[in-house]
Amino acid sequence: MAELPLVVIVGAGFGGLTLARRLAKAPVRVLLIDRNNYHLFSPLLYQVATAMLDPAEIAQPVRKLIRGQRNCDFLQAEVRDLDFSGRQVITDRGRVRWDYLVLATGSATNYFGNASLKERSYGLKQLPDGLSLRNRVLDRFERSRWEESVEARRTMLSFAIIGGGPTGVELAGALAELIHLVLRKDFRGLDVGETRVTLVEGGDRLLPAFHPSLSEAAARSLRRKRVDVRLGTLVEEVHPGEVVLQDGTSLAADTVVWTAGVRASELGERTGVELGRHGQVPVGPTLQLEGHPNVFVIGDAAGLDDLPMLIPVAMQQAKHVASALTRLVAGAAPGTFQFRDPGIMATVGRNSGIAQLGRIRLHGFPGWAMWLGVHLMNVVTFRARAVVLLNWAWDYLFYDRPIRIMVSAAPAAPEGDHGASAARAAGTTTSSM
Amino acid sequence: MAELPLVVIVGAGFGGLTLARRLAKAPVRVLLIDRNNYHLFSPLLYQVATAMLDPAEIAQPVRKLIRGQRNCDFLQAEVRDLDFSGRQVITDRGRVRWDYLVLATGSATNYFGNASLKERSYGLKQLPDGLSLRNRVLDRFERSRWEESVEARRTMLSFAIIGGGPTGVELAGALAELIHLVLRKDFRGLDVGETRVTLVEGGDRLLPAFHPSLSEAAARSLRRKRVDVRLGTLVEEVHPGEVVLQDGTSLAADTVVWTAGVRASELGERTGVELGRHGQVPVGPTLQLEGHPNVFVIGDAAGLDDLPMLIPVAMQQAKHVASALTRLVAGAAPGTFQFRDPGIMATVGRNSGIAQLGRIRLHGFPGWAMWLGVHLMNVVTFRARAVVLLNWAWDYLFYDRPIRIMVSAAPAAPEGDHGASAARAAGTTTSSM
Repeated sequence: MAELPLVVIVGAGFGGLTLARRLAKAPVRVLLIDRNNYHLFSPLLYQVATAMLDPAEIAQPVRKLIRGQRNCDFLQAEVRDLDFSGRQVITDRGRVRWDYLVLATGSATNYFGNASLKERSYGLKQLPDGLSLRNRVLDRFERSRWEESVEARRTMLSFAIIGGGPTGVELAGALAELIHLVLRKDFRGLDVGETRVTLVEGGDRLLPAFHPSLSEAAARSLRRKRVDVRLGTLVEEVHPGEVVLQDGTSLAADTVVWTAGVRASELGERTGVELGRHGQVPVGPTLQLEGHPNVFVIGDAAGLDDLPMLIPVAMQQAKHVASALTRLVAGAAPGTFQFRDPGIMATVGRNSGIAQLGRIRLHGFPGWAMWLGVHLMNVVTFRARAVVLLNWAWDYLFYDRPIRIMVSAAPAAPEGDHGASAARAAGTTTSSM
Repeated sequence: MAELPLVVIVGAGFGGLTLARRLAKAPVRVLLIDRNNYHLFSPLLYQVATAMLDPAEIAQPVRKLIRGQRNCDFLQAEVRDLDFSGRQVITDRGRVRWDYLVLATGSATNYFGNASLKERSYGLKQLPDGLSLRNRVLDRFERSRWEESVEARRTMLSFAIIGGGPTGVELAGALAELIHLVLRKDFRGLDVGETRVTLVEGGDRLLPAFHPSLSEAAARSLRRKRVDVRLGTLVEEVHPGEVVLQDGTSLAADTVVWTAGVRASELGERTGVELGRHGQVPVGPTLQLEGHPNVFVIGDAAGLDDLPMLIPVAMQQAKHVASALTRLVAGAAPGTFQFRDPGIMATVGRNSGIAQLGRIRLHGFPGWAMWLGVHLMNVVTFRARAVVLLNWAWDYLFYDRPIRIMVSAAPAAPEGDHGASAARAAGTTTSSM
């Protein structure tokens, strides 16, 4: 009996994980590859950064999520290159041969080549970003407590968030609430007048994907939370303690978060195809890579019809590719992808969110309630839902953030990991599938 | 009006925190100093290492714990030295003057000068230890999945825990359960016969502080969980992938945890006093430092009557010092410390614990139920209790560990933290109290 064809999926984000699960009953074997051993519920990463949720509440082990699925296995590895002629992905743990390949490698922070930004600002894309930012925010408050110079304290307690998209807006709201509702009580001597959260947006309104009335509602809500919202403001460079703007003025801020740029993951360069907008790999309406009918690209990594880099796009594309692969294996044509817009939403903090679903537009409490329900339903497992709900309820009722501890951890394999034998074995991973 | 005298407490562990809280109504100001911004519920650290609990469930922000207490403030700093003539502690953030000083600096892992142990084994005393060990255990399983050599796999999946005290016993039981009840389901191809948890104890029984019948019960319970318990076995050195024993034989193991030695914190050396057993600072029956009536030492850092390094000792001593300080400030004699033994307990995993309370000795399910109740009541805040209970219930009912994700994080202040002004200010911390 011939072995079933092997579908290699690179990336266990919303696209890759959805695809792997959708292939549970297809006549294929599935290998999911990711550099991390977890799937990240990234829309709530800003809550890790603001001491509301712990990493395990938004990150679920990939193996747990595919546990029931007999035809699926997982390889924790970093994919370095693609070998199309040999049909192999080249990872830091060896080569893996594919029959079908799906790149679901997502996106990364884009600093647009600005070295000062890259070096001196915090990103908010990966789990360690969220933890590092949390440590940083708490550390600035601890240090400011014993700082005698008012000017130095003001700089320490100033946080500049660059980028008025959903990540920037949600982070700014949550950070302002952390300061005004929680840290103000932790630090009795704190003069909140010395703290400042500034949200810097280059365009003329926040959240340009939403209707202007909702952008307005979000800006009003942030300003009520004492966020300094600056529209039409572009950043030139980040210096220690200072953000230099393009108009020549500057903002004093010790902590700068950059949420104003994303680009598709760098692995796209290895396809050899000329990349499109945001470094995305252009794909046809079937999501296949041109000239490689056995290779698909989905989610943020894929460039198709200027679709936004949003989770629903990745998940719908994953569902399409699951059925396309099933058809391909059966000798049929893969079919074309159609995107259905499910709407967009964002939260600005306690009791305040915005949601836009077709012609329905909600803001304030109704928008927040909608956001809450949708996000709670989508946190991946029941336990995570229960813990997330408990933390949110705790915060809501007691104006408290449960997780405000600073902790760092070494990555795995800190010392000698006897890498020689591991590499030797990983070089033949295909055969052990 | 003269300022109230300042009590400086170094260490926010069980001793230091209890003392600070007990001084809430005393006519003193209190400054609690710790290198971390959290109080750690260390008895559950092994559950962080075995993917049962998240850091925030056993670590609570110090500021939150002293929030209601008007006379108490917190300084996050590392104490480097003591200046008795100037009555100052010297920290990495400047000097702090005291009127009364209490050293509650606890203990650290003791490698007895064995460099190979220090370099190649994991400790389990601090929160980052627990996270690093969790990352390591999960990483070994991920790597072994794609390792072709049986021998290499066996070494990767062998864990040696050195030290048969409560930490070693609890960790061995929890790790065996993680492997046999959880990871075995995550890794479908896993041959559990290739995994091994070895508990190495130099003495002739586990848990020497307990009655021999309870030591026996613990060893039986561990062996039922397939832990290889080796008594009367001393470790000579740790090589990569190998533990060399004093009898000349060796154990293959890729991950070694050292729980067989503790010593009082190094700050004791700065007292200038000749240190006692375990590097403890000898104190008189009042817990005062000889020749320094305004200086107290409590908990693991203090040497008095060969009392064990246990949390109840630290907490009872804290209560004594709270009343001693109140008396001293009022011009009275400090009184002498009396220890009341509240009993000891340990858990060996699901449904299996041991407890010894005076003449009452419990093991098996009753011992476990007792352990459960006492630990749940003592986790510091209500929210932590609720989350811990949820995680424990989840694990108990579904044989699942919620937290098995590998994540690392940078410490706070990763890049330039504008240290010049911070140091300048920290140099004058006393005046801002």
